Amino acid sequence: MVLHETEAMPPSGVKPVATLWIRDRRTLLELALDPEVGFGEAYSAGRIELDGDLVQALDVVYQAMLDAHIDFNWYQRLKSKWMGWIQANTLNGSRHNIHRHYDLGNDFYKLWLDRELAYTCAYFPSPSATLEEAQLAKMDYICRKLRLQPGETVVEAGCGWGALALHMARHYGVGVKAFNISREQIRYATQRAAESGLSGQVEFIEDDYRNIRGKFDVFVSVGMLEHVGAANYAEFGNVIHRAVGDSGRGLLHFIGRTQKGDFSRWIRKRIFPGAYAPTLREVMDVLEPQNYSVLDIENLRLHYGKTLEHWLCRFEKAHDQVVAGYDSWFERAWRLYLAGSIAGFRTGYLQLFQITFAGCKCAPVSWTRAPLYAQETAAHELL
Amino acid sequence: MVLHETEAMPPSGVKPVATLWIRDRRTLLELALDPEVGFGEAYSAGRIELDGDLVQALDVVYQAMLDAHIDFNWYQRLKSKWMGWIQANTLNGSRHNIHRHYDLGNDFYKLWLDRELAYTCAYFPSPSATLEEAQLAKMDYICRKLRLQPGETVVEAGCGWGALALHMARHYGVGVKAFNISREQIRYATQRAAESGLSGQVEFIEDDYRNIRGKFDVFVSVGMLEHVGAANYAEFGNVIHRAVGDSGRGLLHFIGRTQKGDFSRWIRKRIFPGAYAPTLREVMDVLEPQNYSVLDIENLRLHYGKTLEHWLCRFEKAHDQVVAGYDSWFERAWRLYLAGSIAGFRTGYLQLFQITFAGCKCAPVSWTRAPLYAQETAAHELL
Repeated sequence: MVLHETEAMPPSGVKPVATLWIRDRRTLLELALDPEVGFGEAYSAGRIELDGDLVQALDVVYQAMLDAHIDFNWYQRLKSKWMGWIQANTLNGSRHNIHRHYDLGNDFYKLWLDRELAYTCAYFPSPSATLEEAQLAKMDYICRKLRLQPGETVVEAGCGWGALALHMARHYGVGVKAFNISREQIRYATQRAAESGLSGQVEFIEDDYRNIRGKFDVFVSVGMLEHVGAANYAEFGNVIHRAVGDSGRGLLHFIGRTQKGDFSRWIRKRIFPGAYAPTLREVMDVLEPQNYSVLDIENLRLHYGKTLEHWLCRFEKAHDQVVAGYDSWFERAWRLYLAGSIAGFRTGYLQLFQITFAGCKCAPVSWTRAPLYAQETAAHELL
Repeated sequence: MVLHETEAMPPSGVKPVATLWIRDRRTLLELALDPEVGFGEAYSAGRIELDGDLVQALDVVYQAMLDAHIDFNWYQRLKSKWMGWIQANTLNGSRHNIHRHYDLGNDFYKLWLDRELAYTCAYFPSPSATLEEAQLAKMDYICRKLRLQPGETVVEAGCGWGALALHMARHYGVGVKAFNISREQIRYATQRAAESGLSGQVEFIEDDYRNIRGKFDVFVSVGMLEHVGAANYAEFGNVIHRAVGDSGRGLLHFIGRTQKGDFSRWIRKRIFPGAYAPTLREVMDVLEPQNYSVLDIENLRLHYGKTLEHWLCRFEKAHDQVVAGYDSWFERAWRLYLAGSIAGFRTGYLQLFQITFAGCKCAPVSWTRAPLYAQETAAHELL
């Protein structure tokens, strides 16, 4: 099977992007019945091999999906609904879903994330910035968007390994309470706070965002909304409002879509159980019932594409260690997930939104957005 | 009747914001039955007089409406629905609605708008910029957000007196087709294009946005979506997609709300028939069915507050000419509309959104937003 950019049969002169080798008839049947899950399963198991660049091949697939407006058929929709039901993000369900991804072992993530272990889209002031620079720039960009002032209090819903919470405390003098239900991440973050002498200023709490209590000036959530699920958006809005009220402000950073649709079933089966990427229309179910005013929405999908390119490059360099620590199946599944995500963001199948919002009694935060960019170099690199 | 910031009866030491003089019992009854329309009608007719600052008094009213989450009662909802029906933005309805507002006479608008007759929210790089500077800055800001390139083609839906179309052609070298159903505005704009030697580059067409035909690179609409009506958003999206397709990009600039609700009935009755300000959730009905990707949303409500302050100040200076050209009722109704709009934007009852979007085959427009601000002064004034 040959994948290239225009037609099913390569006309002379068109160079195929990649060649797929399908090892057996069973795989062919699985691909025909359920292409998405079938491909993921067969690739992970090594029953499909690919000659050529995996990301480029997936770019072509995603582009074709966008062009043809391919939607799930009834069988796939039924399976998708069933999967949504068994992976529902109830209090217990979320704990299970998060545990399956984020508690795989901190040493695994250290192999391919940046020094700060920021596992969300970075912000590249220029495309040539390093991953380390871009993750720091992202954290600082968020702090600037929120215009954090010393002495303010921040609540963070889903804090990963704690990098943003520690950055806000260290560089902006705010107090932070950060919630996360990944035991491994909370353990690591708490240790980092202690080592940095920031334990008095940053508290990491192993608990669900729904259990956030207390009053704060600012709400921030980076890369957690994907795990909330559309059914819980109204409740998520209530949690935000209970925390920061009408005088507060906040930022949501999340993977989104241009059109409503379930997350890849294979990704939910093997990588991110319970994940869902909303459209902006859907995400307004969080903010509009609370009368929150959207101040700013930025789409950073190209930055996530680049972030993932860095991750995949480091992941591939760590091939032997990943196989040794887990197995070949795991290494191939994660490689497919990272490569597919690059293609998703590069083609626009996936989007990355940052929404800054404020309550109706929040004092205006900034007159224009210009101060956000005062620190960036004047020699801007454009695409 | 005394309006102040906290309670119905002024406690000692609280300075009232303004004092209302209600001239007769009929007015009191009308206010009780239907406060919003009753106030507008009575103020316009001089049956209500106000001692104190009108804008500050309306600030208090809007703030109270926000605080109390005041919604229409069944009688008001019924009247609002009825008004929506008789003012529906059909092809004929829109022509009638637009004629009533924008064809009042170009000389009237020249009394209080800027030199360019830009009748939409300006962009103040700093709050101390003049109105003329801020309207030019707004036009240029939109061109930068769209990253217009010489030789590209732009279609504009609702072009007012043509200022933006001419600015785009003159400073960015693009060809523009601009649609508007206001006869007075089109006549004026066409004359300006001829005087500026831009007739070959800019074509002003007296027609409805629904009749836009042809293919373009860029779609832009500034201050027109308010006249489209939520019932026509899907069709508006079709018009955009027919014009710029999947490879195009565009910008929508419009008055919005944080929560769904009808526009003031008095404003629709006397000032803007058929007007509707959507929430972001609603406006996604334009973009999501077309698979358009939102690149950027900016909320400029404080800039609209300031724009309106300039307009009201000029309008009040032109008091005698307005009364001479129309009558005292008209002058008072328009003063109330401008003052009420200031209060609406200042309190956050109204929002002003600029949405930049692109089709799924549009080449990425910019790596970061920093270049948008490279031209602005480094000494940013903050609130």
